[in-house]
Amino acid sequence: MLARMTVVADLPTPALVLDQVAFEHNLVSMAAVRPGAALRPHVKAHKCTAIARAQLAVGHERFCAATPREVLGLAVAGVGTDLLLANESVDAVRLRALGDLGDLVTVAVDSEATVIAAAAAGIRRVLIDVNVGLPRCGCAPEGAGSLADLARAHGLEVRGVMGYEGHVVGIVDAVERAAKCERSMARLLTAHQQVGGDIVSAGGTGTYAVNSWANEIQAGSYALMDTAYAELGLGFRPALRVAATVVSINPNFAVADAGLKAFGMDHGDPILEGGEVLFCSDEHVTFRSEASARVGERVLLQPAHIDPTMAYHDRVHVASGPGLGAEIVDEWSIDLRGWD
Amino acid sequence: MLARMTVVADLPTPALVLDQVAFEHNLVSMAAVRPGAALRPHVKAHKCTAIARAQLAVGHERFCAATPREVLGLAVAGVGTDLLLANESVDAVRLRALGDLGDLVTVAVDSEATVIAAAAAGIRRVLIDVNVGLPRCGCAPEGAGSLADLARAHGLEVRGVMGYEGHVVGIVDAVERAAKCERSMARLLTAHQQVGGDIVSAGGTGTYAVNSWANEIQAGSYALMDTAYAELGLGFRPALRVAATVVSINPNFAVADAGLKAFGMDHGDPILEGGEVLFCSDEHVTFRSEASARVGERVLLQPAHIDPTMAYHDRVHVASGPGLGAEIVDEWSIDLRGWD
Repeated sequence: MLARMTVVADLPTPALVLDQVAFEHNLVSMAAVRPGAALRPHVKAHKCTAIARAQLAVGHERFCAATPREVLGLAVAGVGTDLLLANESVDAVRLRALGDLGDLVTVAVDSEATVIAAAAAGIRRVLIDVNVGLPRCGCAPEGAGSLADLARAHGLEVRGVMGYEGHVVGIVDAVERAAKCERSMARLLTAHQQVGGDIVSAGGTGTYAVNSWANEIQAGSYALMDTAYAELGLGFRPALRVAATVVSINPNFAVADAGLKAFGMDHGDPILEGGEVLFCSDEHVTFRSEASARVGERVLLQPAHIDPTMAYHDRVHVASGPGLGAEIVDEWSIDLRGWD
Repeated sequence: MLARMTVVADLPTPALVLDQVAFEHNLVSMAAVRPGAALRPHVKAHKCTAIARAQLAVGHERFCAATPREVLGLAVAGVGTDLLLANESVDAVRLRALGDLGDLVTVAVDSEATVIAAAAAGIRRVLIDVNVGLPRCGCAPEGAGSLADLARAHGLEVRGVMGYEGHVVGIVDAVERAAKCERSMARLLTAHQQVGGDIVSAGGTGTYAVNSWANEIQAGSYALMDTAYAELGLGFRPALRVAATVVSINPNFAVADAGLKAFGMDHGDPILEGGEVLFCSDEHVTFRSEASARVGERVLLQPAHIDPTMAYHDRVHVASGPGLGAEIVDEWSIDLRGWD
């Protein structure tokens, strides 16, 4: 008797499932528009070195990350030839670990304190992080030149600038998105004129096709796709689902076993195709479905926000395609979770 | 030279911090009103056997949990003499592991399918889960008696009923909360008359003081306290914070290194005392503060919802009191995370 293959519907739940067909479509589509070093995939979106390896396999050797842990994990796994901490840190211990990686690592700096912390930790290369309109990190464009001078005075190689137009990437109207992107990038290019260096790093999934000013795009979401990006018509496909088991039935609704600890919830409830999610609680999703559900049946839910969803799970199951009948062909550790 | 003690402000960030004084106040306050078996602490709120041990130390020997993993973890740790899976499961493998624990474990059932699954897995004891108004699990009150009969026919000991008035626990007006609690418990008591058994299990932190119909209360949040409960004037103190480091400063705001992967976000943004949180992104919180922040400074944020916050972290640091200067006296593993 042949051993039966494992399919999505066999998984213990809740289980994170990656649709390999959609995922590979997304990687190939992006690499066609932003080949090689024109894309610096952001691993914060997936926290998974196996996914980063797949991004490497389609030609991207440079990566960026939001935490020292993510950078270190990539380095230990031997994924990537140029790793950017696209974030500020003043953690002496964690920066030292990155400093020990030498020229493999570049870190973002946006203040005197972050320059001093980087230099003290043995970091060799930095980018000047410029605020291009998102109320988050980055120095004012007019301060970028003097910060670069300070960094060089501390012996740091300044490779260029970065600036994330995060307030622009989600704008649904493509014309408005492009116009606001241009305005943000004008700030970044002003800074770049003062800073010098080869790198102008910016962008995200929402602006990968319209940001023609940056020479590398820091996109992460495109690989698995957030529901918020669906309206933008970017051409990427949702590739991540959470499989759940129906555990309770009521005449008016059904309940499955995936809830607030299985989904990043900041962008709202997950989506159930052919159904309506009423609400989530710790370990449950209450929903209505066009088809009558029965206890034991599996359902697939699409998380609204990929990044904080991945961060809840220790592994993702790779399925040969969409749907409950797809064969499980691999299991990938979400090994860049946490901060240590 | 004496080694300097570690204080909250020394922790690498983001770091989960438990205020021992507030925590112990909460445990003692609850035990005074609901001593011993009158409270069945819900471990889903914290997923931490060390916290469950502290609940045991003030007299509660019975626990409830939302996942087989939580029940098994308590059993392996030897915490508790009576463990209730207050949730439905049809996972044969996980139920079998609970069945192997014999009389230590009771599981909730609310359908023929869950009764059959429990019996097949060697589970010995069940509660009939009754829907008391929350659109989630539980059979209709009028079906509880026949379900109990079915369970007994399958050789299961039926210990009584449970029913969670989760739609009531957050009502701010105490009179309305008590009235709606009574209405929900009328449904549960109707079911109990048909079912029999010693246990009438219900309630949560919001109804622990007004639910006089249940003989055990399934409260979890009281130990660390959600911000949503603050308005209810329940007498419990917020005991959990996330420590973050300021990494970037702007004239109009500051940015610290704890974001969507450090906070359960379904109840909204975390709270910063003496400041205003503007928004969170993956690894950042952007905020305004009354005091001028500087890079490297620590801030403490109170998560809006404890349960999905704990589920993001692998450990919680126990501090001798509130504030950044409190000494770290212990570190507890959040060891009941995940589902395996």
